[in-house]
Amino acid sequence: MTKPRRHSVAFQGERGAFSFSAALKLLGPRVPLHPCESFKEVFEVVSKGTVTHAVIPIENTLHGSVHENYDHLVDYELPIIGETSIRISHHLIALPGQRFRDLNRAFSHPVALNQCRRFFERYKQITPVPFYDTAGSVKMLKEQAPVRAAAVASEDAAGIYGGQILKRNIEDHRQNFTRFFLLSRQARQSGKKAGSWKTSIVFSTPNAAGALFKAMACFALRDLNLTKIESRPLRARPWEYLFYVDVLGSQDDQALSRALENLKETTTFFKVLGSYRPTL
Amino acid sequence: MTKPRRHSVAFQGERGAFSFSAALKLLGPRVPLHPCESFKEVFEVVSKGTVTHAVIPIENTLHGSVHENYDHLVDYELPIIGETSIRISHHLIALPGQRFRDLNRAFSHPVALNQCRRFFERYKQITPVPFYDTAGSVKMLKEQAPVRAAAVASEDAAGIYGGQILKRNIEDHRQNFTRFFLLSRQARQSGKKAGSWKTSIVFSTPNAAGALFKAMACFALRDLNLTKIESRPLRARPWEYLFYVDVLGSQDDQALSRALENLKETTTFFKVLGSYRPTL
Repeated sequence: MTKPRRHSVAFQGERGAFSFSAALKLLGPRVPLHPCESFKEVFEVVSKGTVTHAVIPIENTLHGSVHENYDHLVDYELPIIGETSIRISHHLIALPGQRFRDLNRAFSHPVALNQCRRFFERYKQITPVPFYDTAGSVKMLKEQAPVRAAAVASEDAAGIYGGQILKRNIEDHRQNFTRFFLLSRQARQSGKKAGSWKTSIVFSTPNAAGALFKAMACFALRDLNLTKIESRPLRARPWEYLFYVDVLGSQDDQALSRALENLKETTTFFKVLGSYRPTL
Repeated sequence: MTKPRRHSVAFQGERGAFSFSAALKLLGPRVPLHPCESFKEVFEVVSKGTVTHAVIPIENTLHGSVHENYDHLVDYELPIIGETSIRISHHLIALPGQRFRDLNRAFSHPVALNQCRRFFERYKQITPVPFYDTAGSVKMLKEQAPVRAAAVASEDAAGIYGGQILKRNIEDHRQNFTRFFLLSRQARQSGKKAGSWKTSIVFSTPNAAGALFKAMACFALRDLNLTKIESRPLRARPWEYLFYVDVLGSQDDQALSRALENLKETTTFFKVLGSYRPTL
């Protein structure tokens, strides 16, 4: 086991990716960064102790929950200790001196290009070109300086790789947000639980009429508010479901801790993923 | 309004895309096809009557619910009349005569390439190259015949564009399924409701403690089984939530129809998206 630096954060993608922006928002602009190729690698490096923290996307307002990361949260012992949301805004970025009217292509990840459909319908002279990564497309502009080319990426990506924003907010949907979790090898020390804490849990119930209703009763009877509930069929055991639930409060609060004890009795699998205070 | 052909189906993507495979599974191999560039276009052409049916992805076992399509289901009046699931399998496809050992690149959509990470780690001589579409990458091979190149796409895409499968099932996760809805301008005639019907609904509740619990009671008290429940915060009204619920039964069944009447009383928004029988 490698001795971790005081603070360091693993995330999937290049510097300038949205996970990178979330990491800086959660841990400050000076935190040492550990970019990874896959989500699994993110969980591995924190579990091994190479880095102290991880930042992972968990859901997006257009694309839904990232089930792969819920699977990793169940498999690894890395509690959630923080949460934030990032507005997904795409900008048209070029090297300094490049003029908008000279552009004929724009590189980016196809999901990002697809979220800027109206922009490309309006400026037909600019052809969208698929690339691996949003931030990586700005890095590529800097390294290879392809002629008449731009990239579509975040403001952070423009700043990091010395790109210039030629058109701002070219995305079709303004209501595009991604929610991120901050993970650590150790749960944050419990202390004063003032403010709006949240607790995330995963559990499964037998698929009997009313099994979920009984599970929900544990919260409702104690006036505890859920902020998320989502079912996911277990493919390997199709008669069972996995549920993701977020509830307001900390697991150290008496009412919530009793609700969780109660819930355990009605479930076939149960795991608290962590209690945390959202960073706005 | 254009007079629709007897049966025709709109879907997003190229022929050979997974939505295409779902359309054929739901409507038979001879159904006239109407490929569209976006999900919105799919809903538009069916609403206008240019085509009679639509097939849309609604959730994936790794990537979650497609909220964009839930939004369209709420905005357009196109009832769900069928449902199916497609196993997402990726194959390495090349033009006939191309040998595996001569390949040095493979084109596909980055999401598909990313789902075949272990394959590319094993065969390092083959570089993954991002392309717009999985099926479109096979079409491109056929049209442009780039040297030493392959594509990553479905078996249907190989068949349509005359590609040859060199390696089967190169995806990392075997538990990768996408669920599709079949939509029509008119709800299927109600008749004998034998077999396992499902009904999909969307509703919102005020974010008061227990509001969701009351909503769920409408089903639990009548022994009705939910097969999906998912909350989604309404960004514009952050104190309210939208819920997606699937329940076993048809809206023509007495118990379910009473449950839905009951549910309406406790919700601030309520829409039945349709009753349908899954195609296995």
